[in-house]
Amino acid sequence: MKSIIALTLMAGSLVALAQTNPPASTYQLGSDAKSASSNVPGQQYPQIDSERHAEFRLRAPSAQRVQLDIGGHKYDMTKNEQGMWSVVTPPLVVGFHYYAIIVDGVSVADPASETFFGVSKMMSGVEVPSPGEDFYDAKNVPHGEVREHWYYSQTNSAWRRCFVYTPPDYASNPTARYPVVYLQHGAGEDERGWSTQGRVNFILDNLIAEGKAKPMIVVMDNGGGSALFAPGVRAGRGPGTAGVMGAPAGTNAPTETNTPAVAGAGTNQPAFSRFGLMSAATSRFSNTLLHEIIPMIDSTYRTIPDREHRAMAALSMGAFQTFQIVLNHPDTFSAMGAFSGGAGGITNLNTAYNGFFADADAFNKKINVMFFSMGTAENLTATRNLDKLLADAHINHVYYESPGTAHEWQSWRRSFYQFAPLLFRNP
Amino acid sequence: MKSIIALTLMAGSLVALAQTNPPASTYQLGSDAKSASSNVPGQQYPQIDSERHAEFRLRAPSAQRVQLDIGGHKYDMTKNEQGMWSVVTPPLVVGFHYYAIIVDGVSVADPASETFFGVSKMMSGVEVPSPGEDFYDAKNVPHGEVREHWYYSQTNSAWRRCFVYTPPDYASNPTARYPVVYLQHGAGEDERGWSTQGRVNFILDNLIAEGKAKPMIVVMDNGGGSALFAPGVRAGRGPGTAGVMGAPAGTNAPTETNTPAVAGAGTNQPAFSRFGLMSAATSRFSNTLLHEIIPMIDSTYRTIPDREHRAMAALSMGAFQTFQIVLNHPDTFSAMGAFSGGAGGITNLNTAYNGFFADADAFNKKINVMFFSMGTAENLTATRNLDKLLADAHINHVYYESPGTAHEWQSWRRSFYQFAPLLFRNP
Repeated sequence: MKSIIALTLMAGSLVALAQTNPPASTYQLGSDAKSASSNVPGQQYPQIDSERHAEFRLRAPSAQRVQLDIGGHKYDMTKNEQGMWSVVTPPLVVGFHYYAIIVDGVSVADPASETFFGVSKMMSGVEVPSPGEDFYDAKNVPHGEVREHWYYSQTNSAWRRCFVYTPPDYASNPTARYPVVYLQHGAGEDERGWSTQGRVNFILDNLIAEGKAKPMIVVMDNGGGSALFAPGVRAGRGPGTAGVMGAPAGTNAPTETNTPAVAGAGTNQPAFSRFGLMSAATSRFSNTLLHEIIPMIDSTYRTIPDREHRAMAALSMGAFQTFQIVLNHPDTFSAMGAFSGGAGGITNLNTAYNGFFADADAFNKKINVMFFSMGTAENLTATRNLDKLLADAHINHVYYESPGTAHEWQSWRRSFYQFAPLLFRNP
Repeated sequence: MKSIIALTLMAGSLVALAQTNPPASTYQLGSDAKSASSNVPGQQYPQIDSERHAEFRLRAPSAQRVQLDIGGHKYDMTKNEQGMWSVVTPPLVVGFHYYAIIVDGVSVADPASETFFGVSKMMSGVEVPSPGEDFYDAKNVPHGEVREHWYYSQTNSAWRRCFVYTPPDYASNPTARYPVVYLQHGAGEDERGWSTQGRVNFILDNLIAEGKAKPMIVVMDNGGGSALFAPGVRAGRGPGTAGVMGAPAGTNAPTETNTPAVAGAGTNQPAFSRFGLMSAATSRFSNTLLHEIIPMIDSTYRTIPDREHRAMAALSMGAFQTFQIVLNHPDTFSAMGAFSGGAGGITNLNTAYNGFFADADAFNKKINVMFFSMGTAENLTATRNLDKLLADAHINHVYYESPGTAHEWQSWRRSFYQFAPLLFRNP
């Protein structure tokens, strides 16, 4: 067993958002505050100070009530004489947070922010700096490319898009061939997530430059579930009201599934079960991945097209998919990474996945990397149980907990940073 | 002289938006309406019918007033008993339109729409189908890639991003070399515009597949001016109040410059002149393009690194930049395309650009393609004057007018579609 728990202790304590909303006047923005890197050009706010207080502003002279919706909390904003609403938050957790502004009851993106596809719509996002933690920053190292690649899927009868990271030396070594990671998003997100919110290209550029990870290709496709939080399939909760994905993490099913869904008011759509939608998406994506995406990638890019050089990893709903796809298709994949999800699916090693775990030696010979992870602000029950279960059975695996982070991208960036160096170490 | 005026007569008349706002109840959405392709997954509205009426919806039970802001008009939306606001528009012009929803005075993106960087923020966009006009659609032809490429700029002391289109055969012909078009955005936009709003990758895929355009590389970088419409530099007009870019087009200066700017209320920024900002951006970008971007591209991609195989084209503010950069650097570029902008800068052929036009034969030998264009819903005075001026002087050029379209992306998609086949016809 190789457990990595609380690997990195951060400089400065990681203070989670307060559970109750203190009066906004309690907080003041420090004089060292800087504009968030996630703002659009020309926008001064949001700003974040060195204690990770953040001030958000919105000009809305005629609005009656304006709130900030971030990290599962709604903060009332206050209006000044010029009609500018503002609020200073308690210290925010480091990393990337989706957020919204609620204007007279309507949840909208902040016009000052870049937008990111999450919670089934284009959300605002704020990047909170993490002192001393720069593994996902653009640095003075050789950079790979992220390629937007379109292809027609016969089984989906649709044009599809994937993003493909090629490592820095891909063009300069025109005969080299590379291993591949299929890296997937969560529910309510899509194929854009890992290269925008996740910054996976910078993470790999940096790891490769340091010699910590092998040069590899990363394929990011659409695993379904993008509409899971759209009005017709909403479960009656606001997008930001329970972490990011709207559900407690680490439960026995993929994290978004444990709430019965009801039809959104004002739509013509019938009620769907989120779990039903996710299972259908997984089945469909498994088929597309195995029979269309992998052959297309292997014929388009200079891959090493065998199981030893093919891995899958993903977050949340995608983590559930990763368990399902890799452990049911070990002749296609030799490594897996499941970030913040899916671990609850294994409760009995003798029966899970057709008894694949029953013979530890056989499993250990077949699966080179079995990695799973969780943020410590998530529910850790399922992953810790699985960690113990596998350890007791002498199944090789790596369990990682991201200190202080929730069901958010900072957990998944760190997870990938831990995961990638483990890959493709066998020749 | 090769003038192409109103080249394509569209099936069905192109009805511009009504100049006054009739009562919303005047219009009803046709039963053949379909969800816009620009919606996020799971969202039914906006919907557009075959007569190009569009219905927009927003759920906002507590809001006092909700308006749709599109194409220079604000339409009051009406609320039903469930708190759903809606409006059906007059027939919209075909193509892509930025739009916003105004909730109790605050202009925000529609949560149902994808977002697109324009007017210095992430705007909603709606794609109105154009019957019989499919040159920008994804078709069953070989597809090139759009590559996100990061590089460090010494002169800007910053990491910069460009997008690079490589043609469909780039990987399969590993020794082939290609000509390059540097293709730029307008003010308030950035390097993402051409591959999202502009669909330039599909336009070229289709042209190349039909043998109408030579395989070429397209480089889309950031030409500055992205913050031009941010609060600190606003000229007191709403983002959608006069076409898209907020200013009449085809005037004697680049289209965004003819309004004195005032400081936005509630910000600490001084007042800027838009023309001053644009001129500074152009000077800075010219330097970056000539001394950093072109050498970087020529050393990274398989280009043909000479003037005969290098062109520049752009829209609006970028069109102004294109005139400035190409005509001042004919040893670097042999072709130019200026879409909806910049034409007013040439009034005297004997003195313009250091007398470059004074000798028509010499100019015609040096510049292989001089293309400029305008949508017929724009102010055509400057481009028609220039067309006549150049024709009278026997200067080879192509002037194109996009029928029925305004200072919007449909004009620029069509302009590029006309422009690209003219390029790189000399060996």
